[in-house]
Amino acid sequence: MTGVDVADSVVYGHLWSTPETRDLFDDRGRTRAWLQIIAALAAVQGELGIIPADAAEEIAGAGDLELDLDAVGEETRRSGHSMLGLIRVLQRRLRADGAEWVHHGATVQDVSDTWTALVMQRMLAIARRDLGTIERSLLALADEHRDTLMLGRTHGQPGLPITFGFKAAVWAAETGRHLERIAAAEPRLAVGQLAGAVGTQSSWGDQGPELQRRLMERLGLGAPDASWLTARDRVAEFTALLALVTGTLAKIGNEVYNLQRAEIGELSETPAPGVVGSITMPQKQNPERSEQLWTLARVVRASVGLALEGLVGEHERDGAAWKTEWAFLPRASTAAAAALAGAADLLAGLRVDRDRMRANLDAQQGHALAEPVMLALVPHTGRQRAHALVHRAASVGRRSNRPLLEALASDPEVTAHLPPDALADLMRPERSLGAVAAAIDDVLVRAQGRTAAP
Amino acid sequence: MTGVDVADSVVYGHLWSTPETRDLFDDRGRTRAWLQIIAALAAVQGELGIIPADAAEEIAGAGDLELDLDAVGEETRRSGHSMLGLIRVLQRRLRADGAEWVHHGATVQDVSDTWTALVMQRMLAIARRDLGTIERSLLALADEHRDTLMLGRTHGQPGLPITFGFKAAVWAAETGRHLERIAAAEPRLAVGQLAGAVGTQSSWGDQGPELQRRLMERLGLGAPDASWLTARDRVAEFTALLALVTGTLAKIGNEVYNLQRAEIGELSETPAPGVVGSITMPQKQNPERSEQLWTLARVVRASVGLALEGLVGEHERDGAAWKTEWAFLPRASTAAAAALAGAADLLAGLRVDRDRMRANLDAQQGHALAEPVMLALVPHTGRQRAHALVHRAASVGRRSNRPLLEALASDPEVTAHLPPDALADLMRPERSLGAVAAAIDDVLVRAQGRTAAP
Amino acid sequence: MTGVDVADSVVYGHLWSTPETRDLFDDRGRTRAWLQIIAALAAVQGELGIIPADAAEEIAGAGDLELDLDAVGEETRRSGHSMLGLIRVLQRRLRADGAEWVHHGATVQDVSDTWTALVMQRMLAIARRDLGTIERSLLALADEHRDTLMLGRTHGQPGLPITFGFKAAVWAAETGRHLERIAAAEPRLAVGQLAGAVGTQSSWGDQGPELQRRLMERLGLGAPDASWLTARDRVAEFTALLALVTGTLAKIGNEVYNLQRAEIGELSETPAPGVVGSITMPQKQNPERSEQLWTLARVVRASVGLALEGLVGEHERDGAAWKTEWAFLPRASTAAAAALAGAADLLAGLRVDRDRMRANLDAQQGHALAEPVMLALVPHTGRQRAHALVHRAASVGRRSNRPLLEALASDPEVTAHLPPDALADLMRPERSLGAVAAAIDDVLVRAQGRTAAP
Amino acid sequence: MTGVDVADSVVYGHLWSTPETRDLFDDRGRTRAWLQIIAALAAVQGELGIIPADAAEEIAGAGDLELDLDAVGEETRRSGHSMLGLIRVLQRRLRADGAEWVHHGATVQDVSDTWTALVMQRMLAIARRDLGTIERSLLALADEHRDTLMLGRTHGQPGLPITFGFKAAVWAAETGRHLERIAAAEPRLAVGQLAGAVGTQSSWGDQGPELQRRLMERLGLGAPDASWLTARDRVAEFTALLALVTGTLAKIGNEVYNLQRAEIGELSETPAPGVVGSITMPQKQNPERSEQLWTLARVVRASVGLALEGLVGEHERDGAAWKTEWAFLPRASTAAAAALAGAADLLAGLRVDRDRMRANLDAQQGHALAEPVMLALVPHTGRQRAHALVHRAASVGRRSNRPLLEALASDPEVTAHLPPDALADLMRPERSLGAVAAAIDDVLVRAQGRTAAP
Repeated sequence: MTGVDVADSVVYGHLWSTPETRDLFDDRGRTRAWLQIIAALAAVQGELGIIPADAAEEIAGAGDLELDLDAVGEETRRSGHSMLGLIRVLQRRLRADGAEWVHHGATVQDVSDTWTALVMQRMLAIARRDLGTIERSLLALADEHRDTLMLGRTHGQPGLPITFGFKAAVWAAETGRHLERIAAAEPRLAVGQLAGAVGTQSSWGDQGPELQRRLMERLGLGAPDASWLTARDRVAEFTALLALVTGTLAKIGNEVYNLQRAEIGELSETPAPGVVGSITMPQKQNPERSEQLWTLARVVRASVGLALEGLVGEHERDGAAWKTEWAFLPRASTAAAAALAGAADLLAGLRVDRDRMRANLDAQQGHALAEPVMLALVPHTGRQRAHALVHRAASVGRRSNRPLLEALASDPEVTAHLPPDALADLMRPERSLGAVAAAIDDVLVRAQGRTAAP
Repeated sequence: MTGVDVADSVVYGHLWSTPETRDLFDDRGRTRAWLQIIAALAAVQGELGIIPADAAEEIAGAGDLELDLDAVGEETRRSGHSMLGLIRVLQRRLRADGAEWVHHGATVQDVSDTWTALVMQRMLAIARRDLGTIERSLLALADEHRDTLMLGRTHGQPGLPITFGFKAAVWAAETGRHLERIAAAEPRLAVGQLAGAVGTQSSWGDQGPELQRRLMERLGLGAPDASWLTARDRVAEFTALLALVTGTLAKIGNEVYNLQRAEIGELSETPAPGVVGSITMPQKQNPERSEQLWTLARVVRASVGLALEGLVGEHERDGAAWKTEWAFLPRASTAAAAALAGAADLLAGLRVDRDRMRANLDAQQGHALAEPVMLALVPHTGRQRAHALVHRAASVGRRSNRPLLEALASDPEVTAHLPPDALADLMRPERSLGAVAAAIDDVLVRAQGRTAAP
Repeated sequence: MTGVDVADSVVYGHLWSTPETRDLFDDRGRTRAWLQIIAALAAVQGELGIIPADAAEEIAGAGDLELDLDAVGEETRRSGHSMLGLIRVLQRRLRADGAEWVHHGATVQDVSDTWTALVMQRMLAIARRDLGTIERSLLALADEHRDTLMLGRTHGQPGLPITFGFKAAVWAAETGRHLERIAAAEPRLAVGQLAGAVGTQSSWGDQGPELQRRLMERLGLGAPDASWLTARDRVAEFTALLALVTGTLAKIGNEVYNLQRAEIGELSETPAPGVVGSITMPQKQNPERSEQLWTLARVVRASVGLALEGLVGEHERDGAAWKTEWAFLPRASTAAAAALAGAADLLAGLRVDRDRMRANLDAQQGHALAEPVMLALVPHTGRQRAHALVHRAASVGRRSNRPLLEALASDPEVTAHLPPDALADLMRPERSLGAVAAAIDDVLVRAQGRTAAP
Repeated sequence: MTGVDVADSVVYGHLWSTPETRDLFDDRGRTRAWLQIIAALAAVQGELGIIPADAAEEIAGAGDLELDLDAVGEETRRSGHSMLGLIRVLQRRLRADGAEWVHHGATVQDVSDTWTALVMQRMLAIARRDLGTIERSLLALADEHRDTLMLGRTHGQPGLPITFGFKAAVWAAETGRHLERIAAAEPRLAVGQLAGAVGTQSSWGDQGPELQRRLMERLGLGAPDASWLTARDRVAEFTALLALVTGTLAKIGNEVYNLQRAEIGELSETPAPGVVGSITMPQKQNPERSEQLWTLARVVRASVGLALEGLVGEHERDGAAWKTEWAFLPRASTAAAAALAGAADLLAGLRVDRDRMRANLDAQQGHALAEPVMLALVPHTGRQRAHALVHRAASVGRRSNRPLLEALASDPEVTAHLPPDALADLMRPERSLGAVAAAIDDVLVRAQGRTAAP
């Protein structure tokens, strides 16, 4: 079988998922995890005397069976039921005793929601690990390029100078906030479910809460205070979190894409060996990884609307809202994982061209350093006049393609207050870096604090 | 291999796609279609003397080869190029002459965009066919239930009576408008592309337009006036069209879901034989098909935002915008096809319970027929007083659980103008059907007109 | 002036905003808040000797001026600059000294982002307050209706019994999780910004961090470690949080809407006095408040995509991403506030019809109580046979419109194991409530724990 | 009153709406239009003898009254009804006879949906007019810059040469397709509604269809075949159309934004006189109009999801779906109008720097012209070897910062087939323009054809 969805394509799947998320979400991985939940449920039901000990033991031992997935599919289509296919195929592999007590009293959503909790837990761990790697790369860049001057740009136009280390620190700070978000969300999200048909655990008399508690403990999950069969806030929060993270990664990718433009050339991806940029244009080196980060973020973002819509679940179970999760959870998760891995890889090999950064700054001929001159004029001329003077000099300079310093130095109203030497000094880019170093240090310290925490 | 995406699941895929759309979009189907485009291109290039005749003949004959998709995947990963994998594996199957002239001067997007046009053309044909089936079912229901009285409901509350045929006619009218939209869009959307690297057809000197014209003619597509490498309005229009169609199907599904409620019971799905509603609640019959229509519509809708975002393509080719299509086009198309097939199936087996419809109307004890009484009072009392009188009687009736007629008949201010007999006559539901029959006829006539058109 | 946007309509605005959020977001409120930030900045700049003490004092005293907003608009259009209009009109109200030092060294985004932080802080407080009210209503309902039997429903169909208190407890648990989310997010979101043109605080030499620290302290906000000019994760998180909250409220609204259907009649809104349901149908009572909760949630949800897209900010300032916030932040906030107020109001007046709940349960003639019979049969017949037996009886019962108990009692294969008395006992709804009481208690305890926390 | 929504802001509203759309959508404009519908309805009802002639005449004459909107708001809040406020305030202005027959037998949605149809009709006319202006600008640019060489760019990297005229022609072709879409959609969308409470025109006996036909004729609208109270496909199609159009405008804006980068400098906005780019950086000239096009497109796009969700209307009237239109229709329309006006303005003043275009092309030192060399080698060396040879030369050239021609000319394997003169000739950019001129002509001819059509 080959895939309809691009994440399942044997040709393109590697760009849209990762091996570990494929294993997590494909039929094989999902079925294996469901079997383990079924096995754990039986074990705990045996402990509590809800089902016979023999049956419990047999089912509990079936958690590692490899079922025939085509047969599961066939029985699923025959029964029209989301889980009966799995149950029937499993029952064929068990002795009669066990077979009769499989999944006793539980419903599909008990298994699928508990699996969703496990999946969210695992995805948060993946995000934490990869964001950690990304943050380390960014902090290293921040530290290494603390003084690497480059143009700051606003609205796509040259602004004041920054350093590349500062840019990396801003990215690292955002990454750090995501790590904090994940840490805070984890205990709220990693909560399973054993609710029964309408959320009341009706099948197990008064043993439901204890059964649920033990099952979740065994699976490493929290137990909910009340059914979340139609309370999907955890799923929505999780999906929004993935979109927040991949949005940041897309921002970094977009920045590399733009700064890799031939006309700018400040950053570039390390091309993988053997890679061909274009079949018709042999000279091409495209920022493919960076671009893909933006693509993946869009895909994840589109899932958030679905997740939020799913909050409006009807009554005690709502198929339309719940089954939509089957479509967006694997997609958003695999795409987010691909983005995390891709961003880690991109940053590990990011090439920084200090000379080009400096050259681009210098190519502005001082126009990027109008602010300090204006500020220095304010006490003498007032703010409005100061703005007007520098604006006029900038216009003159630009029209005649001359350095701003020359244009300013030829204006007696300026030089009356700031002689050419003073202007030249004011316009040294290093003078306009403000709190760049402090910000880099703050971000480093904060990250260390978080890492050092227990 | 098993699928990560639910449309690729061997267990659940049947609910999220159809066999014909799987064949269209999976690696096998896509690769086959791409090969046929490559073959057609070579054939036309041979005709025009752009490539040697021998090579053209060989490549043109390769359109039906079954390539080793794993090998294509491996070469794709090795080259990091979206199409070089396919080219290399194809070249291995050709003699040297042919191999050198495969896909001469063209780029990935020439093939993938032309394929996209073919896919859109095919999907519109599928939608047309299935909407035609759906429309016929609806028109038959409209005709059959032209006089089947039921409650109209607004804001979830009883309104005036309608007939079920009227409801079906409203659905049919909307379906008919979609058929008109599809017919109007088809020539605009089924347009291929042979643009070359930057849209200028640079590889073929001045032969580009003729080459493109002949290629598209051979493939049954239109030729564009200018490159659409970063002009994705056709793709966005197509995706919006799928969402419009599936939105309507979801509306029908939602209506069946609600009218199948045990407390209402007016419509119901025919359960497929062998289907199990619930493993814990053996009595259950769920409106599964109806629910799934809403789920699928959400999935399609989520793609529209991506398609519209893709309109903002940068420069002459934009990877981030274009590759997003790889994720949403198959998904939106397969989900739409599943919805079309599901809706056709649902309507073919829809059970209409006339007795329950009538009983629910009667259970309102005439409160659903307050409007005609109010209107009949207006000439006597003025509108505001008429509204107040009937509102008061309705409140009295509801509080005392009595028929509205009784409550009205006991109010002398009402009976001064409308004696009980007149009231009873006014409140016959048949009297309040307004233009129901005319609307049904109009819809039937309009549909016949469209079908009869050439 | 009258509004284009429905929140600004003099006719409909009350349904789409609240007085306190109108005051927060309209031109008057925003301008006032911006002036106060400008005043506070000057005060701190005076303290630190960055601007002359006289100027500082004058500007610091101008925080409560009422500016001519039409003049601000005119200057804004003339200058084409987002903030120069405000500055110029303010300067006219100051002596020359002060005028020259207004907003010294800061940029638009310093003010607008700090305002955004204040707004998010205020909105979280509003949400906390209103969710607190809502939670108290829900807990009271949970407690009062702990034993009020009603049908649980799944897929729109009768399931097992629950109690209305249980339903309210599930809602309360979700509301409680939102309260936890808000408490956790508040310190992360209520963080202002004084970044200067490119984020480096370049205008203030090395005084930037201290200046920012003091300013934010004065405003009751946190200070960021690095610029967030193009790091909009806080805004995206905030918007997602509003959508999570309103999604839950929409769920409650949708439930009331459905349970208020005439055919169900278990819950209903208290109509406000004087309200007219329909001008043509005088008998109408529509669940208007409930419906509006769903409408508002959609509006808020649509903002989340915009907020997430805004994460991809370019370089050191990105106008397209940032200005989109101007459109969605007020809209999402006012709609969320309207939903919070509306839900609080709806729940305060919610009517619960115990008799109808019981009647609807009884109308199922025991079919909603198939599960316990099936479970009781399992030890005797095995699970599959048990399911088949009860399923058969349910089908027979439904076809002949007889109680399930009768159908079961007439099947010797059933009565062989469960005599009629045992069946009748099993099918008492109270027996199938499972952990309902425990869940209600858990939710109550957890809410008390949160309230008791410091 | 000042606005909460940015379109209603007295400070910023001009960037988010246009005067004509403000007049269309604000309370004043909407109320005026509603009054005119009410007046027209009365006139036709008089003609048909449905209401007394005197009353008809009076109401028909009230279409131009200016009502007290605050009073309308007050009555709206008091009655809790969307339209009763308007009716009551209107009634106060009429003699008793007229007052009693206002809006006889019709419902809110009859007026509001008919208004929606008028609004869609008007917006399509605005879009047609402004897109016409935009298309003319683009065609003029295409013609003028038919031979203006510039770099084509793919994935943000230099590709082959194009001309700026070609780029403009691609934009014009897309604009032209939108004009075709609008022309095709107009008769389908400009369809009013007179449906009554549940869509059956129940109030008017068998006169409903004729009443509706005459009313719509009077208003310049089509009459529907059946009620569209819960068939909102027209509204969804309209909103998607606005998003398609503004998406294209955003693409143009984004291209100007990028090509205005100081490092590229090929296009630029004409700054309006008096405009200030930055208060801290006096040298700044930002592409503000271009940026705003992208912002506005996002806002419009966010409405499409809401419109599509609204397709799932329940029963005969669905408040949640319908009232959402109140929020998104004005917003999407005003934003689209602002984008159309902004794009027309941007293009009217677009500055094209031919020298910079040429210089950026030349700065690639021939690397952008690798394709023709590769193609010329194919007959001699085969395709793979040709790609490898040129790729190697490009790498050498880039590493040593030398022209590609030099690098190729120093490779004997290349010069064996292509001597330096031949290489130089192949690498003239004019030789690689392919079908640029033909595409420009095709687009011009097609646009002329459409304009010439009746």
